[in-house]
Amino acid sequence: MSLRGGPPSADGPVDFRSDNVATAAPEILAAIADANRGTATAYGGDELSRRLDERFSELFETPVRVFPVATGTAANALSLASITPPWGAVYCSEVAHVHTSEAGATEFFSGGAKLVPLPGNDFKVAASALERALADAGVGQTHRSQPAAVTFTQATEYGTLYHPDELAALCAIARRRGVKIHIDGARFANAVAALGTTPAAITWRLGADLMSFGATKNGALLCDAIVMFRPELATELPFRLRRSGQVWSKMRFAAVQLLGYVEGGLWLRLAARANALASRLGNGIRELPVARLVAPVQANEVFVELPGVAIEALAGKGLLFHRRGSNVIRLVCRFDGTEEEIDRGLEMFRTTLR
Amino acid sequence: MSLRGGPPSADGPVDFRSDNVATAAPEILAAIADANRGTATAYGGDELSRRLDERFSELFETPVRVFPVATGTAANALSLASITPPWGAVYCSEVAHVHTSEAGATEFFSGGAKLVPLPGNDFKVAASALERALADAGVGQTHRSQPAAVTFTQATEYGTLYHPDELAALCAIARRRGVKIHIDGARFANAVAALGTTPAAITWRLGADLMSFGATKNGALLCDAIVMFRPELATELPFRLRRSGQVWSKMRFAAVQLLGYVEGGLWLRLAARANALASRLGNGIRELPVARLVAPVQANEVFVELPGVAIEALAGKGLLFHRRGSNVIRLVCRFDGTEEEIDRGLEMFRTTLR
Amino acid sequence: MSLRGGPPSADGPVDFRSDNVATAAPEILAAIADANRGTATAYGGDELSRRLDERFSELFETPVRVFPVATGTAANALSLASITPPWGAVYCSEVAHVHTSEAGATEFFSGGAKLVPLPGNDFKVAASALERALADAGVGQTHRSQPAAVTFTQATEYGTLYHPDELAALCAIARRRGVKIHIDGARFANAVAALGTTPAAITWRLGADLMSFGATKNGALLCDAIVMFRPELATELPFRLRRSGQVWSKMRFAAVQLLGYVEGGLWLRLAARANALASRLGNGIRELPVARLVAPVQANEVFVELPGVAIEALAGKGLLFHRRGSNVIRLVCRFDGTEEEIDRGLEMFRTTLR
Amino acid sequence: MSLRGGPPSADGPVDFRSDNVATAAPEILAAIADANRGTATAYGGDELSRRLDERFSELFETPVRVFPVATGTAANALSLASITPPWGAVYCSEVAHVHTSEAGATEFFSGGAKLVPLPGNDFKVAASALERALADAGVGQTHRSQPAAVTFTQATEYGTLYHPDELAALCAIARRRGVKIHIDGARFANAVAALGTTPAAITWRLGADLMSFGATKNGALLCDAIVMFRPELATELPFRLRRSGQVWSKMRFAAVQLLGYVEGGLWLRLAARANALASRLGNGIRELPVARLVAPVQANEVFVELPGVAIEALAGKGLLFHRRGSNVIRLVCRFDGTEEEIDRGLEMFRTTLR
Repeated sequence: MSLRGGPPSADGPVDFRSDNVATAAPEILAAIADANRGTATAYGGDELSRRLDERFSELFETPVRVFPVATGTAANALSLASITPPWGAVYCSEVAHVHTSEAGATEFFSGGAKLVPLPGNDFKVAASALERALADAGVGQTHRSQPAAVTFTQATEYGTLYHPDELAALCAIARRRGVKIHIDGARFANAVAALGTTPAAITWRLGADLMSFGATKNGALLCDAIVMFRPELATELPFRLRRSGQVWSKMRFAAVQLLGYVEGGLWLRLAARANALASRLGNGIRELPVARLVAPVQANEVFVELPGVAIEALAGKGLLFHRRGSNVIRLVCRFDGTEEEIDRGLEMFRTTLR
Repeated sequence: MSLRGGPPSADGPVDFRSDNVATAAPEILAAIADANRGTATAYGGDELSRRLDERFSELFETPVRVFPVATGTAANALSLASITPPWGAVYCSEVAHVHTSEAGATEFFSGGAKLVPLPGNDFKVAASALERALADAGVGQTHRSQPAAVTFTQATEYGTLYHPDELAALCAIARRRGVKIHIDGARFANAVAALGTTPAAITWRLGADLMSFGATKNGALLCDAIVMFRPELATELPFRLRRSGQVWSKMRFAAVQLLGYVEGGLWLRLAARANALASRLGNGIRELPVARLVAPVQANEVFVELPGVAIEALAGKGLLFHRRGSNVIRLVCRFDGTEEEIDRGLEMFRTTLR
Repeated sequence: MSLRGGPPSADGPVDFRSDNVATAAPEILAAIADANRGTATAYGGDELSRRLDERFSELFETPVRVFPVATGTAANALSLASITPPWGAVYCSEVAHVHTSEAGATEFFSGGAKLVPLPGNDFKVAASALERALADAGVGQTHRSQPAAVTFTQATEYGTLYHPDELAALCAIARRRGVKIHIDGARFANAVAALGTTPAAITWRLGADLMSFGATKNGALLCDAIVMFRPELATELPFRLRRSGQVWSKMRFAAVQLLGYVEGGLWLRLAARANALASRLGNGIRELPVARLVAPVQANEVFVELPGVAIEALAGKGLLFHRRGSNVIRLVCRFDGTEEEIDRGLEMFRTTLR
Repeated sequence: MSLRGGPPSADGPVDFRSDNVATAAPEILAAIADANRGTATAYGGDELSRRLDERFSELFETPVRVFPVATGTAANALSLASITPPWGAVYCSEVAHVHTSEAGATEFFSGGAKLVPLPGNDFKVAASALERALADAGVGQTHRSQPAAVTFTQATEYGTLYHPDELAALCAIARRRGVKIHIDGARFANAVAALGTTPAAITWRLGADLMSFGATKNGALLCDAIVMFRPELATELPFRLRRSGQVWSKMRFAAVQLLGYVEGGLWLRLAARANALASRLGNGIRELPVARLVAPVQANEVFVELPGVAIEALAGKGLLFHRRGSNVIRLVCRFDGTEEEIDRGLEMFRTTLR
């Protein structure tokens, strides 16, 4: 038995389906094993859980509160429920995971808030769209869902990035209009690594109130987190979490995943690796005929437009990927991927599109 | 680094606070490590997750569906939400965890159902109380919450057990009245081990529709499960789970905990050990002056009535426990406890009560 | 065609089922007809609706906000939802209408709050029970529903009254513990008339935050109201009302019912009449053999314990009433009842019990 | 005192703000007064309430169930909650009242369902858009809100009509895809009158499952209704209604509004009058320079695009209307409007646009 997760072997599958199909980082598994000694206070009263706030406050260069949760959906929906009343409106991009892929979790946890999708380039929210939507929202009109929050996914669902200046402008609009700001950071590590910035610079320093801090896609096993940049928002959340069945009794085993994840910059090293693989993959595809990159490759995802017949051919060759509509495929690179896997994938593309 | 969780050492604390303060069973941690190889389909489409249904169907001797969830609260609340409409009433014991200790989770997940606490001996629901409550419930009267479900905790929150015959009688009442039956099995292993029966004999064979199958208290890390005995109930649950943020992307790491938990009867061995420790503790206390056992010791919990001053004295000696009101303490024995720890605890009692 | 509702004729039924079976007061119907001229701003922007706050502020001798709603259930549930978070606990009497007869409305509108029934004499909440419940509630413990509000029904569901001193003591406990205070005034007029006090003296002067102000049972047609004694609570309510489908477009026809109801003290005159009839009925029954009054007759309701056979006999004679369990009947006197109807009812009792 | 509502006098305002600013029809007020005699069983057990099902079954030429509710928002949200699970998606037009103007009522009553707006001509849902949305909805994918229902507003929020053939095609798509069909008939009378069809022909005969049957805008006071075309849908609704505070105790006064509304075809006569006034208004505006009709005038609403300065000038002349964005105004004609009022309004337009 070994803690090591193994990358796909040379004759294994080329698996670009998702970063969710990845292994767990050995360092994190080791941290779990290391935490498995003696008794520990339940429900987050233990030493490791209490260390979380301190550790993440260092990481974010400001006092924060950290709440481990089971999934990114829980992080998103509970975050948004914390900053919108049941009659609130939450603005997001048209492709936001909270809007398209969480089965109405935000509507559920908030007691019926409304998600308002906004257009923009490269799968981001456009400042002009946000400005107009907030201006026309009918603040104070009781028959309208009231502007309460905006959520930005960083990196986006299509692997693009909000540049810090771009995000600053969006956050400025939100704050001027009095709506709270959430960052969906399911792939936050990929964004920080790719932008070469700090966690603080693209969150609370721009006015973000709280975020979903992803860990599972990038090396953890069963744990993401809500990070709150404004302590006053944290009064209600523990009650929401408990009644949502999101407070583990043996919390130390979640906390230690998050501690291990950021320890020594592991999270950024793992993300940088996935980003580099995606860059290699995107560069290879860009040179091919027929294939068209749907969005710039800025993090660890590559979206490619292809003829349906080519998509079928790639699937027939054993390439593993997900589809987005009839002519676009999504290719995700993992922290535990290898250049060899990328190159085998590119070879499949070349032989298909030749 | 080692996978082994360690029991408290000879000079460590005597920790009877909860089974939630326990370590993870080394076998389960090993199973996680073993599962950490290669890519795996996300969200429960992987091999290990799919094996769950088959494995638990063997265990329960009938086709079942298994849904891993993060916590017992999630298991309970989502189970009950599956079998009660928002205007339904769920009958439970006065000390039921769902009623007293889950911050309104069932009310939340069900969209506002009502929990109706019923009295009974030894912290169980009395058949007469259930019969009367259902008879007087006003079925069909639109101003009354409508009888929908009953939940029995096995073993109970006070470490007592429903004898199979007793449970059969209760279930018969429920079925005759057309209400669905849920078992809160946060400590189901302790019940099965103590009763020397089979999982089937005290669940679906008596008419139970679904159950919360606890694992975390008895050796798992971060995972319990919902087990459904009627496949037709399982259509909606996957949607409920997803929008509750209870569907892990890397589900294999949850599934493997449950597989490891039941593998080779591990769960019953661990539970039997905790039960034996509780029996030893209860027997020791029974012989002491002043102390009174509040309920028969039938699983892994011991509740003791003591003068407040004695409780303070025990705490002062370093005994770790939780209180229930001003004169009762709860002592929980863990699968990773030792006879030596019990005996040290008993010695504290003896020196205090002498 | 006439606006006059007619009382039952001398050979009509003796109808003690409820004050809900009553007619509408002719004065209120006339006020509606009078309001039916010209156009009026919708959704409460009209002149009559705006007059409500002013008129009720006079009535209550303090600035209040008034929100007409369709039913008492809506008034109660929306009031309580305004002062409790989804994880809150609302304390009430064991026979509180909100707990027994509103199909979980408070649970629904609040997003899953918990109603906690408390015992007491004469169907009221006992101060000692409230004190103990709040002391033991586990404030700040995230697994417990958090004390948020208490609701007192005045007059109670059994026609008894909270004496102002008694209510003052209860409110003092609530305020000391930081929970908000709601009055369910479905029969508030009967209470004010019977106590010979002012609306202010038994509401906000004791610390009440808001109330359900009943009108339909006592002369209105289709309209009750929420009265808020603390303006700061009124910010959210308009949004809650709108999304609950409780904001009429032609609000003037609701507002004018409430204005007509209190105009010139009509509400108290009507209530006093119903109270006097109940007193006459109670006095008559008190002198009979076998029958036992279950509670003092203090408002417009009489509850009588009788042998089942006598109950059947009364029903056979054509007396109309509702049952409470197998040996208790409820007799309600209406503002549009007559002494003749009471006396015919008493005669039925006499011939039955002789 | 008189039951007659009066139209605006010759020097009164020209009020095109809404049909919600109208009076009540004298016939309906008379029916209320007429119902005000003797006692009547509460909560809908009375004679008039029970007559509703029969009367509307005649009207719709099929057995239906009728449930009076306080408002159109209640009718819509409770209807939709009856046919969609909390994880369902409800398809509607981009300008649907349920989506834009009910403060999230459908999201609230359904427990978090998602409204999906679809484009189309003349403010209707396009068949192609519905077909595509349902095809791409991801049926069975647990991370997607599941197609449950579609709602068509007839007449639409912009006074246009679904032609029976057009509606038949839309309903056929919905039924083929297994989603339920709701009609928002806030202005159903205007549609039936304008189309010269029967209620049956544009509802259940096309496959509609249930509808919101408006009455308040067109002559009632405080009452709309849900009409269910499939009895099996009606089992749960009474519980939903009760816990929503939508079941009046003195239901007879609501029922009689609906009975009076349809008695002798009153509803269609009133609607035809409002339609004719709108036609006169639309025809007059069509001949003017500068002004542009935004949609065909098919029911009782006229939407006009105008320069902002002209809008200001009209407001300055005392014309009462609502705005839709910066260059469009809404003009609504009422059943109690007069040709004289229309002509005065047109004169204001002429003097403004000259």
